[in-house]
Amino acid sequence: MSILAIPILGEARHPSPVAYHVPDNVYIPAEVGWVNGAPPAEPLLFERAGPRAKLFFDPKQTRAGIVTCGGLCPGLNNVIRSLFLELYYGYGVKEVLGFYDGYRGLDPARCKPPVVLTPEFVEDIHKQGGTVLNTSRGPVDTGVAVDNLIERKVDILFTIGGDGTLRGGRDLYLEAKRRGYALSVVGIPKTIDNDVPYVARTFGYFTAVEEASQVIRRAHMEAHSVENGISLVKLMGRHSGFIAAGATIASQDVNFCLIPEVPFALEGPDGFLEALKKRILKRKHAVIVIAEGTGQDLLGNEGDERDASGNVKLKDIGSFLREKIQAFFKAEQIPVVLRYIDPSYIIRSCPADAEDAVLCDLLARNAAHAAMAGKTGMAVGLVNDHYVHVPIEMLATHRKRVDPDGEEWRAVLAATGQPARMGSPAR
Amino acid sequence: MSILAIPILGEARHPSPVAYHVPDNVYIPAEVGWVNGAPPAEPLLFERAGPRAKLFFDPKQTRAGIVTCGGLCPGLNNVIRSLFLELYYGYGVKEVLGFYDGYRGLDPARCKPPVVLTPEFVEDIHKQGGTVLNTSRGPVDTGVAVDNLIERKVDILFTIGGDGTLRGGRDLYLEAKRRGYALSVVGIPKTIDNDVPYVARTFGYFTAVEEASQVIRRAHMEAHSVENGISLVKLMGRHSGFIAAGATIASQDVNFCLIPEVPFALEGPDGFLEALKKRILKRKHAVIVIAEGTGQDLLGNEGDERDASGNVKLKDIGSFLREKIQAFFKAEQIPVVLRYIDPSYIIRSCPADAEDAVLCDLLARNAAHAAMAGKTGMAVGLVNDHYVHVPIEMLATHRKRVDPDGEEWRAVLAATGQPARMGSPAR
Amino acid sequence: MSILAIPILGEARHPSPVAYHVPDNVYIPAEVGWVNGAPPAEPLLFERAGPRAKLFFDPKQTRAGIVTCGGLCPGLNNVIRSLFLELYYGYGVKEVLGFYDGYRGLDPARCKPPVVLTPEFVEDIHKQGGTVLNTSRGPVDTGVAVDNLIERKVDILFTIGGDGTLRGGRDLYLEAKRRGYALSVVGIPKTIDNDVPYVARTFGYFTAVEEASQVIRRAHMEAHSVENGISLVKLMGRHSGFIAAGATIASQDVNFCLIPEVPFALEGPDGFLEALKKRILKRKHAVIVIAEGTGQDLLGNEGDERDASGNVKLKDIGSFLREKIQAFFKAEQIPVVLRYIDPSYIIRSCPADAEDAVLCDLLARNAAHAAMAGKTGMAVGLVNDHYVHVPIEMLATHRKRVDPDGEEWRAVLAATGQPARMGSPAR
Amino acid sequence: MSILAIPILGEARHPSPVAYHVPDNVYIPAEVGWVNGAPPAEPLLFERAGPRAKLFFDPKQTRAGIVTCGGLCPGLNNVIRSLFLELYYGYGVKEVLGFYDGYRGLDPARCKPPVVLTPEFVEDIHKQGGTVLNTSRGPVDTGVAVDNLIERKVDILFTIGGDGTLRGGRDLYLEAKRRGYALSVVGIPKTIDNDVPYVARTFGYFTAVEEASQVIRRAHMEAHSVENGISLVKLMGRHSGFIAAGATIASQDVNFCLIPEVPFALEGPDGFLEALKKRILKRKHAVIVIAEGTGQDLLGNEGDERDASGNVKLKDIGSFLREKIQAFFKAEQIPVVLRYIDPSYIIRSCPADAEDAVLCDLLARNAAHAAMAGKTGMAVGLVNDHYVHVPIEMLATHRKRVDPDGEEWRAVLAATGQPARMGSPAR
Repeated sequence: MSILAIPILGEARHPSPVAYHVPDNVYIPAEVGWVNGAPPAEPLLFERAGPRAKLFFDPKQTRAGIVTCGGLCPGLNNVIRSLFLELYYGYGVKEVLGFYDGYRGLDPARCKPPVVLTPEFVEDIHKQGGTVLNTSRGPVDTGVAVDNLIERKVDILFTIGGDGTLRGGRDLYLEAKRRGYALSVVGIPKTIDNDVPYVARTFGYFTAVEEASQVIRRAHMEAHSVENGISLVKLMGRHSGFIAAGATIASQDVNFCLIPEVPFALEGPDGFLEALKKRILKRKHAVIVIAEGTGQDLLGNEGDERDASGNVKLKDIGSFLREKIQAFFKAEQIPVVLRYIDPSYIIRSCPADAEDAVLCDLLARNAAHAAMAGKTGMAVGLVNDHYVHVPIEMLATHRKRVDPDGEEWRAVLAATGQPARMGSPAR
Repeated sequence: MSILAIPILGEARHPSPVAYHVPDNVYIPAEVGWVNGAPPAEPLLFERAGPRAKLFFDPKQTRAGIVTCGGLCPGLNNVIRSLFLELYYGYGVKEVLGFYDGYRGLDPARCKPPVVLTPEFVEDIHKQGGTVLNTSRGPVDTGVAVDNLIERKVDILFTIGGDGTLRGGRDLYLEAKRRGYALSVVGIPKTIDNDVPYVARTFGYFTAVEEASQVIRRAHMEAHSVENGISLVKLMGRHSGFIAAGATIASQDVNFCLIPEVPFALEGPDGFLEALKKRILKRKHAVIVIAEGTGQDLLGNEGDERDASGNVKLKDIGSFLREKIQAFFKAEQIPVVLRYIDPSYIIRSCPADAEDAVLCDLLARNAAHAAMAGKTGMAVGLVNDHYVHVPIEMLATHRKRVDPDGEEWRAVLAATGQPARMGSPAR
Repeated sequence: MSILAIPILGEARHPSPVAYHVPDNVYIPAEVGWVNGAPPAEPLLFERAGPRAKLFFDPKQTRAGIVTCGGLCPGLNNVIRSLFLELYYGYGVKEVLGFYDGYRGLDPARCKPPVVLTPEFVEDIHKQGGTVLNTSRGPVDTGVAVDNLIERKVDILFTIGGDGTLRGGRDLYLEAKRRGYALSVVGIPKTIDNDVPYVARTFGYFTAVEEASQVIRRAHMEAHSVENGISLVKLMGRHSGFIAAGATIASQDVNFCLIPEVPFALEGPDGFLEALKKRILKRKHAVIVIAEGTGQDLLGNEGDERDASGNVKLKDIGSFLREKIQAFFKAEQIPVVLRYIDPSYIIRSCPADAEDAVLCDLLARNAAHAAMAGKTGMAVGLVNDHYVHVPIEMLATHRKRVDPDGEEWRAVLAATGQPARMGSPAR
Repeated sequence: MSILAIPILGEARHPSPVAYHVPDNVYIPAEVGWVNGAPPAEPLLFERAGPRAKLFFDPKQTRAGIVTCGGLCPGLNNVIRSLFLELYYGYGVKEVLGFYDGYRGLDPARCKPPVVLTPEFVEDIHKQGGTVLNTSRGPVDTGVAVDNLIERKVDILFTIGGDGTLRGGRDLYLEAKRRGYALSVVGIPKTIDNDVPYVARTFGYFTAVEEASQVIRRAHMEAHSVENGISLVKLMGRHSGFIAAGATIASQDVNFCLIPEVPFALEGPDGFLEALKKRILKRKHAVIVIAEGTGQDLLGNEGDERDASGNVKLKDIGSFLREKIQAFFKAEQIPVVLRYIDPSYIIRSCPADAEDAVLCDLLARNAAHAAMAGKTGMAVGLVNDHYVHVPIEMLATHRKRVDPDGEEWRAVLAATGQPARMGSPAR
């Protein structure tokens, strides 16, 4: 069996004040297809999430902390709020601290002290975008952070961020363990790109698709209202084109959807530019959506430069493509009206929509349950429609990507009518 | 094994023009929990949906029809549109007809003739609510309808509607079979209440939750802006309180969420009215959300009356509760300001949001794939995050309901702070 | 000349800290049409609003109060916020108090004490609907209120409410005057119905039209999606149909717009029901919008009953019309599907849209200017696109009503295609 | 007297089918302030708009055309729709043609032929952004266009566009007159910037302010969620900062509003950058809104280059300012997180909001009335809350600009708290 064990701080012996319980021995398989009626052999099995009957931490003696890291994403405040409410009302913990400014906030020399969360503080925070705890990029010195957490008697730390953040959280737990301090670190994966494995939908993704669809509708009107109008919309998606694909299917207004998972050639008889020309000559307008991480090969990006979070610095495919399109049609002597739209900052800073609000609530409450039971070094996941516990290491095994042979991408091809393959990829 | 077989019209021997395929022998289990690492014993196994390599129908000779029945639901036009596009562009079928006015439209004596769908006709229909094919309640004479379908040489009929509609569709297939006519009838389940089993989310549900959440936000401002303000919001949910529960979790502005699955007493020291009084005395305002099918026991509804669709006629719990609350506080000499809000018709007539748009697209395309492969007497479902084929009979086995012991209802209790049980149920 | 003089508390001799000034001798005429090039003879002339060079109150010694009364209206929080900001930052007054719960809040025996407003308190209040100061209906004992205002050393009171509220405010000023206490009372007229004379647009009206238009769009889809679908939407408008008319013109989806200013007969060959029948037979669907105060004659409402604010209690024309329509078509043996929608509480509790936000800001700042200059017994108005000072008495001279011979109503008739006159009025 | 005469094609002797009339001898003054109670001396007097009792054109013999020119603006489809409906239903004209692709559409050699408008064609066009007639920049050969209009027997041409478009329309009328052909050309001024004189609000402006306010709210969350976060939002406004000012007042989330009318210095102790630094040090975040035409002096733009519409090509102040800010804070060794947002294409392509929808309807209907009465060489205006006829020449006398000494700009200063003057202007 491939049961994915979750690190545990010790025996759970405090009875839980929470009224219903999920047993510790139920697992959700990553693979659910039964071929010819036989169960999958040796699937990855994830512990099912939920409140446990016994807790490692005595709620009345427990102090928790929350930190939000990396870029904005709809739902951050919802997660903060539901974490607090579950801990405070559900378990009756002693205190919940909100650390400011991302991981920087764990270093007392680099940030103001944390805020003690209260029902009044969190009352309406879910109605606005951003994060009330602020955020930043980059790591913290593990030793300094653990010093601080021990000094402040923090038993549980919830880290809301991308994979770098979650791995950093695991380092904190390991360092605390080395010192004999029982620190639970539980992550809530945050990536608007929806590219985390074993989390079917990351929070904020749905909202981003909704917002992106609205932008695409406007881009469609721009292109549609002039002869040979072209709207080029750059959307988020560093390694995975889920937002671009989702918004394409939802809006049904896109004619070319370009994502990192499906390389293409610009030039040549089967390339993108010729396909675009055919479309323009035939229909007189086109909407192009491109994920920001697409076509780094075309840009000659070797991936050497990195930002403060350790992410590869992307080269700007949007501006590049804009110039290529303009030059191409100029050479072809076809006058076009090209509009370039980059709505990323508008999209990621908006409040969570209802679906994401529900997702945030359940992710956060399940994270609280796991931590109170003494689990650590893990994140909350969503596998085959069930919330699960995912060891941090599993998140780093791969990225979730749009499957070029799957039904989602096929729905994109059907919605756009674009060629399934556009030229040989540049590599 | 409990493989749920799908009726098939005959051998599928025409090669499919669709480029990727899902084999016919992969099944998705209804139950995915592996206890102690062992697979579930004898789970219900559903055929996985998707395009098949071989088709029963020769696309070039195939004529399909679409009909929408019952009440409005966000996404109807998206389903119509994606069905047409998959059949027309994906398979190249000869013709797709849109029958008007629900099942009435299958009877030529009672309705104008169907429209031949075209790319121009469906171009922008998904941007508006309602259904361009119109809808109605009630059945059609099966013999008359089959006469008409045969006369019009319709090979496939897609029925978009509730369980009555889907069962009616199966009758059509069986009647045609009796006459030796190969008619595929494939349903796309439609219920804004989200109460269909084996369809994790029915289309329109997410949009309804989003819209209901916005209404609740307004109701909260009404209640919050006066002393002892009470807003009472009636939402859809005849048998299942999913919309009420979802909107409660999403908005986090509700103080009492009342659903059919969780009976309660009005009167008595543990009853709802006392709980409301405590809330009002302490916080000076309250928001109550009630699903329309709640508390039929309190109303003495024996369920004898039925509407044209065969649904039990509900008595109006909203007005009843409004009067009970007003009488109660009058007797208690506590002046309250009560606002009653019934937004149902506003919610169900709006366009699908992005998430529902994606869901509609994938449901519709999978329905098209199933029909072209010769499947019939089935509906498209969604089990553990995978699209599947569900025999119509299975839809009638039970309703999907909010589990009073599950994590969703617990999230409701946490969001509202309402007592888990309010008095003994009236029965 | 008909210059409308504004009561003034005394000589304005303190220099204003505000950098720009509007002189006291500029007037805006109510009537601007120059016939044959000659100016209107003896028009009503209103003092132009704006900051004055000299103030009656010494800002550093001045304490102001704010109270919100009556029903909710989008923009209340914007007005509170801009009043505070202008007084606090623009003039540097000593203190601004927010009295709770409408006029009840002026009576210390009936309400908790006022809040001292701060920049933090008002920071984000304009982003939500309702009023952070709460509201109530009904008057306060003038003597008690003036006692309290004198006791609290309040020099200026801003009253935000309908005409009853504004007249009540004048009584406070007169009572204070009688006692030799210089109290400025300045009103900001609040009526979502937009029926105040000399205020071309009251705040909240635009937002209400926008929201009502969205509701009408949904109602149109309801009616349009079934055979003989009728949607009946009741909108606000006790005496004046501005919201119904505005939303009809904006949405262009309405077929009958019924307002108090244009009486009609229900029955008879030229009556409303026959006109509706013609429409249904011809187009198979209809959207009806009715202002709540319409057709009180049909209901036999003599106007004897009044609510706590002194407003005539309206009888429910919506339910009445619904029943009449259903009975009529039943008798005609024409099956119709009628949906009744009453969105009033959803509309009035929403935040102000951008246009209303700007209007609220300018109304509030001009009210602050007037009060600091020592004006009293007045309200801020908007005449021919200029902000003016309106003596409270002028507000009571008449209601602003939709002119059945004017261009707005003509635009309604053009948008709906309804008959200009439907039968003889019932009277 | 300064009555602004409108050119008239000849005697109006056909009785109007429209039921109510506005006489021809009522004028609205541009200036309405009565100083010391005396009417303004020699004000500009504009003919009041509205249906006239007598028409120059016999409706049954009349053919009209509509053309939309220049950039997108919310409400274009509303104007097209209401023009058609008024002509078709109100007057019963013979035919209304929609010319495609802006002025290019008047040249049969450069564009497909016009569409004959019908009730079905315009049914739902107002629910979407853009223009169904398409648009383009640039003029048409006057002789060719008049040939075509005469050939097609077009009696009236409605031109919807900016001042270049309107002047071009007057040239058409003059050329037709020279040939003895009675052509009425009536303009509906279109500028999202709201910079047309004698049109208090141009259509689309309100919608743009609403949309821009939403974007600013998001920008605020971006800036507010990180330490030293700066959001820089570029908005439309080539010569006039009305959108930037309006959105600043509406959102109340802006800290610096920069517009063409108020020059400023970047550098120096009183310059913008120092003011921004003070804000960042004190409050840790800032939102900057800049109109696109601002600071062309700083960019060294001499205004030599022009686009196809004849507009001066602006240099990109947004990118320039972004770089200046980043360089400045780098030199100051203050780490900032700067987000640059350019939402222009998203804003201008959206549908009209309710207020703009009403405005479009009334502008369009008044334009139809004027043309049917035989007026030409004019545009519809809005002066002191009354619709008027404006001779085309008057539109070119000046641009409407934000008055740096007026109440609107003062409301901006109050909302932002920015210094009234930032350094000496560069010039």
